[in-house]
Parts: sequence; structure tokens; C-alpha cells
Amino acid sequence: MTRTIVASATREVIIGFDQPFCVIGERINPTGRKKLAAEMNEGNFETVKADALAQVAAGATVLDVNAGVTAVNPNETEPPLMVKTLEIVQELVDVPLSIDSSVTAAIEAGLRVAKGRPLVNSVTGEEEKLEAILPLVKKYDVPVVAISNDESGISEDPDVRFAVAKKIVERAADYGIPAHDIVVDPLVMPIGAVGTSGQQVFQLLRRLRDELKVNTTCGLSNISFGLPHRHGINGAFIPMVIATGMTSAIMNPCRPQEMEAVRAANVLNGTDPNCQEWIMTYRDHQPAAAGASAAPTEAPSAGGRRRGGRAARRTA
Amino acid sequence: MTRTIVASATREVIIGFDQPFCVIGERINPTGRKKLAAEMNEGNFETVKADALAQVAAGATVLDVNAGVTAVNPNETEPPLMVKTLEIVQELVDVPLSIDSSVTAAIEAGLRVAKGRPLVNSVTGEEEKLEAILPLVKKYDVPVVAISNDESGISEDPDVRFAVAKKIVERAADYGIPAHDIVVDPLVMPIGAVGTSGQQVFQLLRRLRDELKVNTTCGLSNISFGLPHRHGINGAFIPMVIATGMTSAIMNPCRPQEMEAVRAANVLNGTDPNCQEWIMTYRDHQPAAAGASAAPTEAPSAGGRRRGGRAARRTA
Repeated sequence: MTRTIVASATREVIIGFDQPFCVIGERINPTGRKKLAAEMNEGNFETVKADALAQVAAGATVLDVNAGVTAVNPNETEPPLMVKTLEIVQELVDVPLSIDSSVTAAIEAGLRVAKGRPLVNSVTGEEEKLEAILPLVKKYDVPVVAISNDESGISEDPDVRFAVAKKIVERAADYGIPAHDIVVDPLVMPIGAVGTSGQQVFQLLRRLRDELKVNTTCGLSNISFGLPHRHGINGAFIPMVIATGMTSAIMNPCRPQEMEAVRAANVLNGTDPNCQEWIMTYRDHQPAAAGASAAPTEAPSAGGRRRGGRAARRTA
Repeated sequence: MTRTIVASATREVIIGFDQPFCVIGERINPTGRKKLAAEMNEGNFETVKADALAQVAAGATVLDVNAGVTAVNPNETEPPLMVKTLEIVQELVDVPLSIDSSVTAAIEAGLRVAKGRPLVNSVTGEEEKLEAILPLVKKYDVPVVAISNDESGISEDPDVRFAVAKKIVERAADYGIPAHDIVVDPLVMPIGAVGTSGQQVFQLLRRLRDELKVNTTCGLSNISFGLPHRHGINGAFIPMVIATGMTSAIMNPCRPQEMEAVRAANVLNGTDPNCQEWIMTYRDHQPAAAGASAAPTEAPSAGGRRRGGRAARRTA
């Protein structure tokens, strides 16, 4: 059974098909958050700290850390900021971290200070990336997110994306990195732009699980980009990818609809024994908060409902 | 491609892997609804009518009709009540109907008056049932729900349930009934009682789709029986079964969380072209209604969020 171990100084998280879905909190990322970028540039980490605490409280089991505040000279400015951000976050919370950067020097600097066994986010199938990142992954003995695009961009053909993932796994093996330390991102395109993107991902996930036997992740909310009521799309996408084999996602755990979907899918996937987390979380749930009935009549007692010949269906 | 055609006098619904998920409204059923049973016994069909209209308005594409108001002499009392109920419902709404009874005489009486091509609900693998129901299904050329239990009850072994389904399909073939007119119910056990019931269903659905190539259905809310916040479990179960091949469910369409899950899963499964129904339904969605953020900070612009090396991931 494929198991990817991610760890902080004191806590270990296993990503695997028989494990609860691994929620990698995406909030500590200044991209598209001007206020946060300005704060981090000024050495103000209050929002970073608040986001770290809020995400762990909401149920994130790993936190992604991105310090890409500027496109100006990132090779020099980003490594020290990554180090500082990682140090602050790992001082505050005990979950494992993901070192997220497109700047190799920032990843390397991060690897020097991150405690435990952080996740590297990410390598792609691009030759330059493979040669820069894989030696670091090997040297520090850490797992890595492998994004299934290469020099030619992101293919709309799932077979090509599978081939890129396979190439990365094989190249990693050349460096002595086992497949269970590669977490493949099959790439999720917005369904509003590419109508087949859901089916593409489901098909890819089955192959990645059955043929490459690797763990998987994605930037989850990409799927709903541009659509109204994105949480509704995200909240259905999560159970669907879990049912087809995805084992982690980079997402916002502070969204209750998405986290509810994760918890319910864990119950249904058999990774929340005795529904313990579900019951603890929702035993006092008020229907008014979500899912209230539009029907004015009495609640259905579906468990006791008779259908043709199935009076006893509830009891095995 | 497997297609099960259900029809009223004027409207046809196709159940199939490439079709929107077929929502069979479960509300017109006096089992466990004492008030409704009393009304129907007295010849008062106001609640039946209200339930028919509400379910169609909520998005049901087929309505299940059950007239089992009493366990006293059902062979005599249920057939005329089934006829009356079917007549009232098909007078009022134009969706196809499902004739739901454990009383063969009620199914036969219903088949005589139901217009179009109703669904018979149901046959099981029990010898007596097979011999009673299959000739009616053949005579009236209608599709039938096949529940995967037999004289020995409901097996907890998915292989046994698959074998029962296969037996029903084969027996139906002996009567000249094609597999595309069999809609198998793999039987959903409450996850709170049987921790593997989700995995059992997913495994069964894949085999039913790949090996028997049949459409499938289930009494959906059984999965969450006994748990708190059942809508949350149901709302994740729907996308998971759709992702693994289920093509219809007998459920309460008047529950917004469940219908949202159906609509979102249709988008993601590629059966809501251009996200048209989603956009029409949710374009004015107010976050406060469901899925509001617990985080006080700005919304994430995930589409524009940078992660390592994937700035262009949104555009294929």
C-alpha cells in the first residue's frame, strides 16, 4: 500500500489510499493577496500566523507555505522570506509543512530549516525543473508534488498528462527516489472552460492509482473557477476525486462546505472509523446552517420507508 | 451505451452513463407517514398532489408512487389505491412514474393504467418475486428495478450481491427482457452500522457498470441512517456514487443540499453541457444560504494563485 510520510518535528501525517484525505491548507500564499504580500515584505507575519492557526483549527493536516511576494529578483528575495515564514509557522503549529515555490533556491533554503519531513511543492516534467528539484528531494529525503505538465504546457489529453507523470516517476527512480514519495498532481482545469475536465481527472486518477500506484493531489478550487456558487462545485468535486482515488488536495480548509465534503467522504470511504470524527463534528449541527429542507412537510423517515419487497433492507 | 427509457404520456427520460443523474422522487409513499396514509385511506389526495408538484419543481425527473397504506389485506386494498394514486399524479404532472409496491397485484393494476413506459419497483432475486414480476415486465415492455437480495436476505459480501444481480439479469433475459431494462439496486446499508458499506457500494457499482453494463439506483438516504447531519453524508454520497457509475437514485428532491450535489456532480461528470443548469440555478446564489466562509479574511482567488511552476495552469 502506497504511503507518503510527511512530518513536522513532532507530528507525522500519512498520505495513502487507506488514510483520511489529506487536507493541505493553501492560505499562506501571497499570490493574489496584495495585503498579505505587503505585510510579508515589511516583515509583518500577523496574517501568516492567523492563517496558520485558523487552517489547523479548521482541519488542515498539512500547511502549504508560499513566500512569493514579488516577481522582482525572486532568486534573492524569496529564499530568506521562505526561511522566515517557515520558521514562524513551524514555531506556531505542529502540522507538517509544504515548501511551495517556483524558485529552486527558495525550496533549498526552506529544506535547510524545515523540521521533520516537509513536502516539496513542486517539480514538473520540464527538464530544467527535474534537474533542479529531484537532487534536492533525494538529498533531503523528502516527498515531492509532481505536476503533470512539461515544456509543451498542459495537455488537454489525459494520456499525455499520464505520460508526463510517468516520466517524472521514472526520472525520480533514477535518482533513487521511490514512487511513494511522488505525489502526482494530474492538473485540474476549470470545468467552466473545459467541459471534460472532471472526466479527465477521474480517468487520470484511476490510472495513477492502478498503474503508477502513486498518491495524488491537486489545487482543488481550480475546478470551479469562473462559476457561480463555487463552494457547491468544490463540495461535490471532493467526494468524486476521493471516490476515484485522490488522496490529498491543496485547498482552503476554512470553507465549511468543502471541509464537510472531506469529512463525509472520509466516512463513506471507510477512513473515519465508527464515523467518530463526523459525529464529534456534527452531533449538534443545526439544519438551518446548511441543507435545510425546502419542503414544508414532515421529515422523511427513509430508513423505515417501505419499497417493493425491501422492508428489511436496513438490517443486513 | 446502456439506455433505460422511462416515459409518461408526453415525456421521455433516459437513464444512462452519459445522461444527467436521474432523480426519482420518493415522497409519494405513505410508509412511515401516518398522516399521509390516513389521508389516502380516506380518499384525500391533497398531500399526494402537493408532493408531486413540489418534487417536480425541485428537480425530480421521475416520481415513485407507493400506495401501501396498510398491512391489512393489501392484495385487495392496495391495487385500487395504486390505480387511483397513479391516475391523480399522471393527471397533474408530466414526468414518468415508478410503480412501487411489494404487492404484485398492485403493480399489475398500476401497469394497466400508467401511461407511457413506467418503471416497475421492484423485483428481487427471490424465486417467487422473479416468477411474479418478470412476466409482467415482459408483457408491458417496461423497465424494472432489481434489488440484489434473495431468499437468504441481504448479503454483506458484495460478491454475493453482484451474483444476485447477475442472476436477475439472466433470468430476465430468459423472459426476453434486455439488460438495459434492468436497473439494479446494489443495496445501500447505513454506514453508521456497516463501516464498509460505502466501499461495498462503490465496488459493486464499478462491476455492475463494467461487467453487467446495467443502470443502477438505490434508496439513497439509507446510507446516513442514524447519523447526525444526514444531509451532509447524503450530499457527499451522491457525487461518490455518480463518480463510480450510479445513474439514478430514489431520493427526496426537496432537500436542497442533496439536489445541489446532484447538479454539481452532473457538471463534473460532463452531463450538464456548458454548466447551463448549474448557472441557471445558482447564478444568484447567496453564500449565506450554504457554504459561507468561516474565515474572516478576503476570499481566495484560487484561479490566479501561484504555486510552484504553475502560473499558467488555468489555461490549457
